Amino acid sequence: MRIRLVTNNPHKLAEVSQILAPYGIEVERLGAEKVEVQHDDVAEIAKKAAENLCVRYGDYVVVEDTGLYIEALGGFPGPYAEYVYRTIGLSGVLKLLEGVANRRAVFRCAAALCLGGRVEVFLGEVRGTIAQVPRGIGGFGYDPIFVPEGLGRTYAELGDDVKNKISHRAQAFSKLATWLTTTASKRA
Amino acid sequence: MRIRLVTNNPHKLAEVSQILAPYGIEVERLGAEKVEVQHDDVAEIAKKAAENLCVRYGDYVVVEDTGLYIEALGGFPGPYAEYVYRTIGLSGVLKLLEGVANRRAVFRCAAALCLGGRVEVFLGEVRGTIAQVPRGIGGFGYDPIFVPEGLGRTYAELGDDVKNKISHRAQAFSKLATWLTTTASKRA
Repeated sequence: MRIRLVTNNPHKLAEVSQILAPYGIEVERLGAEKVEVQHDDVAEIAKKAAENLCVRYGDYVVVEDTGLYIEALGGFPGPYAEYVYRTIGLSGVLKLLEGVANRRAVFRCAAALCLGGRVEVFLGEVRGTIAQVPRGIGGFGYDPIFVPEGLGRTYAELGDDVKNKISHRAQAFSKLATWLTTTASKRA
Repeated sequence: MRIRLVTNNPHKLAEVSQILAPYGIEVERLGAEKVEVQHDDVAEIAKKAAENLCVRYGDYVVVEDTGLYIEALGGFPGPYAEYVYRTIGLSGVLKLLEGVANRRAVFRCAAALCLGGRVEVFLGEVRGTIAQVPRGIGGFGYDPIFVPEGLGRTYAELGDDVKNKISHRAQAFSKLATWLTTTASKRA
């Protein structure tokens, strides 16, 4: 089985490939233009973007959207995490949290799959905190400053093998894989 | 003549109405769902969003997109200025600029108009600096911290009457109005 992931981020492509490999699902990149509704909820963004692309590209297209919601910053950077990373970077986010005691944050991932003219959305969520300084060399993006609850180490310190079993993205895509290999194959 | 402005922002609706009144153009709000491409350039965002809406809503629909580009922050908040205002607010933006000598910023506005199955895009741009602290009570959003070049006062201090003659939005919509009342009417 093969899905077509709409993304321009090579890190996400690699992660999703690693997450889906144990399910025997291959991942191909689809370089389609994603249009997005303005919404704070990644599920809504992924769903609407998929609905738009399903019509043109058909079955097994998957749109992924991820947000990092920092409680003390009113949910910032939320669904605009990639843009914020690219402009003010981790140092900017850490500067915004200088002197802020509440470091709580949530990583949310939504994977929206086109199948049979419908869109199915799968969610993953990991609660955690924002570290005082970047730590670790694994992963990408916010991984050096995100500490999943109870683990005491950042995603970047945990490394790809561990991260890709427990992360927000791992949860969303594992649900998608389970659904594809059970429910969907029964319907076929 | 009447345009239909796609916006959920009452301040923008009021400003555009004031800017277009001298041209005899009325402004009505169109509550359509705007889908956006991810792009740093407001012209590209407005154009693509308009193309999408022209098909459904027809002539005289106008999509507006505005960005505030702060040089020292890599262009942040750019086209996500509204979201950033709603989450970290002016205090967050000022915190990011603490200790930063380069306060240069540019306000860019794009107005994309549907007419005769085409989209025409009009641009406005104002260079300036980010103030050390918010000043003035006029306007909305970033107006209390944006000082247009050479004026020494923030948009909020200048007040709506002055702002709506010189602002990024005033420039874009004045061009649109001139085009509508000359070129377009000659073609009709």
